[in-house]
Amino acid sequence: MSPLPTAIVAALRAVLADGPVPLHEPRFQGNEQRYVQDCIASTFVSSVGAYVDRFERALAEYSGARRAVAVVNGTAALQVALRLAGVQAGDEVIVPALTFVATANAVHYLGATPHFADSAEDSLGLDPIALKDWLAHSTERTAEGTRNRHSGRPIRALVPMHTFGHPCDLDALMALAHDYRLALIEDAAESLGSRYHGRHTGTFGLLGTLSFNGNKTITTGGGGAILTDDERLADHAKHLTTTAKRPHRWEYLHDEIGYNFRLPNLNAALGCAQLEQLPDFLASKRRLTARYLDAFAGLEPVRLMQEPPGCESNYWLQTLILDEAVAEQRDAILTATNDAGLMTRPAWTLMHQLPPYRDCPRAPLPVAESLARQIINLPSSAGLA
Amino acid sequence: MSPLPTAIVAALRAVLADGPVPLHEPRFQGNEQRYVQDCIASTFVSSVGAYVDRFERALAEYSGARRAVAVVNGTAALQVALRLAGVQAGDEVIVPALTFVATANAVHYLGATPHFADSAEDSLGLDPIALKDWLAHSTERTAEGTRNRHSGRPIRALVPMHTFGHPCDLDALMALAHDYRLALIEDAAESLGSRYHGRHTGTFGLLGTLSFNGNKTITTGGGGAILTDDERLADHAKHLTTTAKRPHRWEYLHDEIGYNFRLPNLNAALGCAQLEQLPDFLASKRRLTARYLDAFAGLEPVRLMQEPPGCESNYWLQTLILDEAVAEQRDAILTATNDAGLMTRPAWTLMHQLPPYRDCPRAPLPVAESLARQIINLPSSAGLA
Repeated sequence: MSPLPTAIVAALRAVLADGPVPLHEPRFQGNEQRYVQDCIASTFVSSVGAYVDRFERALAEYSGARRAVAVVNGTAALQVALRLAGVQAGDEVIVPALTFVATANAVHYLGATPHFADSAEDSLGLDPIALKDWLAHSTERTAEGTRNRHSGRPIRALVPMHTFGHPCDLDALMALAHDYRLALIEDAAESLGSRYHGRHTGTFGLLGTLSFNGNKTITTGGGGAILTDDERLADHAKHLTTTAKRPHRWEYLHDEIGYNFRLPNLNAALGCAQLEQLPDFLASKRRLTARYLDAFAGLEPVRLMQEPPGCESNYWLQTLILDEAVAEQRDAILTATNDAGLMTRPAWTLMHQLPPYRDCPRAPLPVAESLARQIINLPSSAGLA
Repeated sequence: MSPLPTAIVAALRAVLADGPVPLHEPRFQGNEQRYVQDCIASTFVSSVGAYVDRFERALAEYSGARRAVAVVNGTAALQVALRLAGVQAGDEVIVPALTFVATANAVHYLGATPHFADSAEDSLGLDPIALKDWLAHSTERTAEGTRNRHSGRPIRALVPMHTFGHPCDLDALMALAHDYRLALIEDAAESLGSRYHGRHTGTFGLLGTLSFNGNKTITTGGGGAILTDDERLADHAKHLTTTAKRPHRWEYLHDEIGYNFRLPNLNAALGCAQLEQLPDFLASKRRLTARYLDAFAGLEPVRLMQEPPGCESNYWLQTLILDEAVAEQRDAILTATNDAGLMTRPAWTLMHQLPPYRDCPRAPLPVAESLARQIINLPSSAGLA
């Protein structure tokens, strides 16, 4: 039998075309050119415009959220969602250790401290069982909610992130958030199109956030959105993300400290065209999953990540999980695949291992630490199958 | 003689075409459609791409700065410039009271406190004479620099803003910054194309910042840039604005807390086309100034703002200054002009009068308070003359 890195390159080549294959590239085969041309011709390329309104309505309709507020990127969406949930300087917010750095950064921007929790093997997202145990022995109840027994700081919110598009165990996490009076904010940056028990991710918490970065399932160049069923929070999100300027015929009165976080109309025009194609993108990604499953079926020491039970994943990034026994070959596999022009990557460096977050509070993280050694993301673009 | 509001409407109509005239609308008559189409066709619409590099080079070349770093908007540019200048939580930063709220917000986002200073009538920007007096009696020198005698906080930076495109008295402000060991960061959001003694605004301080919002002289939909002659600071700006991720073939290692502040390639494509037309826009704006000067020549109680001596202004927003004697008619003039479809607006609400900034430290602000009663911005788009 050939060495594992060679076998993985061969399995990938059995699915993918010859030549270099990026990890995830966008696909513009719908109305992108037409909408963007129309946007420029209208001269409304910036803060206001018909495409922003249309994109927000389409996102709300697609996700089932009552409202969607388009913003400049997913990080900004999460920062504003956390602020709307009441997160303040001096608070702690529970986030997974296994996530992209934006999740922790959004907490930090508000002067709060991320508190890292472990992941579950079946979803790659926050593990509610481990978290329940951790909260039970490391926190205490207060009149306002929950306090970290060690740091003395209030724990204000819980931010599950749907890793690579696979939904977390939301029922259990919502129960925990309820018990400990934590605001539940879903970081659905990676999970546009993913559903948990039939309902779209990002619509379970008080607020949820999406990302339309260039590497995401659909892209606006750069962009994001806040989802919520609460009209008052949605209006407040719009206010905060447009510099908190009160409507007035000519006066510039800002009644609180807001942000310049609006999505330009130009980017929303691209988003409208992309969203029209989302069902096709999702179908293509599921076909790719089926092909990868076939290709890797005979390869014992690896498994392809599949959607958790009761969930429909968008398969944003296809994910190979190495058995612990072969995890030391991770870098050899990354080298072999990338050398072959097949772009792969490992999981992110875990948050508690990044220099700026080394001293933050954290639960034991055995699963996240294993997964970081075991995960390899594979080429995943829509259109590959 | 007709009442002043009527006379002003008549003067404006003598210059402008019939029908509604916005305050400032963008103009897309160059390569905008071509570059944006090319950008979409390339699939590189997001974080990396040839237009971002090209836009940065073109901005550096145009402004004379050694480097330009494109970012998502002018607010983000200022926030990062201030951080690079060493502004930290607990510091104070001197900014004009007469500015758009973004100047103060950028200071606040870093956990620092804006400290408001007065404006000069001849430039509408920070008055170095009043500021010198204020610093002399309200601050004390420390081993590290300057401290606010009243609050006890370090004053770290000085941020002149070139109001409506008119350059501040930079020589005197630079001397003050030097004497008090304050970092000079120019908020040149409004002054792309404006020069002080022949040199482009935004290139005098340690760092300068630009904005390409939809209402600016050129637009990228939303966007901004950081200018600097310091290669090390420019590299650091690029690093901070791209999540502080270290270059690596596949690893996600972020060595400090950065931001998702990159300008998407799609927006940079628009910017490249806009920048090509900037000389035409500036020429058109100067023609408009000449026409407004003629139209308002006979109207004693108002004067049209002209570029300060030794300066070349971009005339981003044309500005009428009412004599104090008729300043109480400001709202009547705003009503009459807007009712006539001629969009005008007053100056921003002064920063120390905004609810979130009411309790910030401030110098006496008599000139800013007068100017806020006297300023009316007029329709100013390129292409009106």
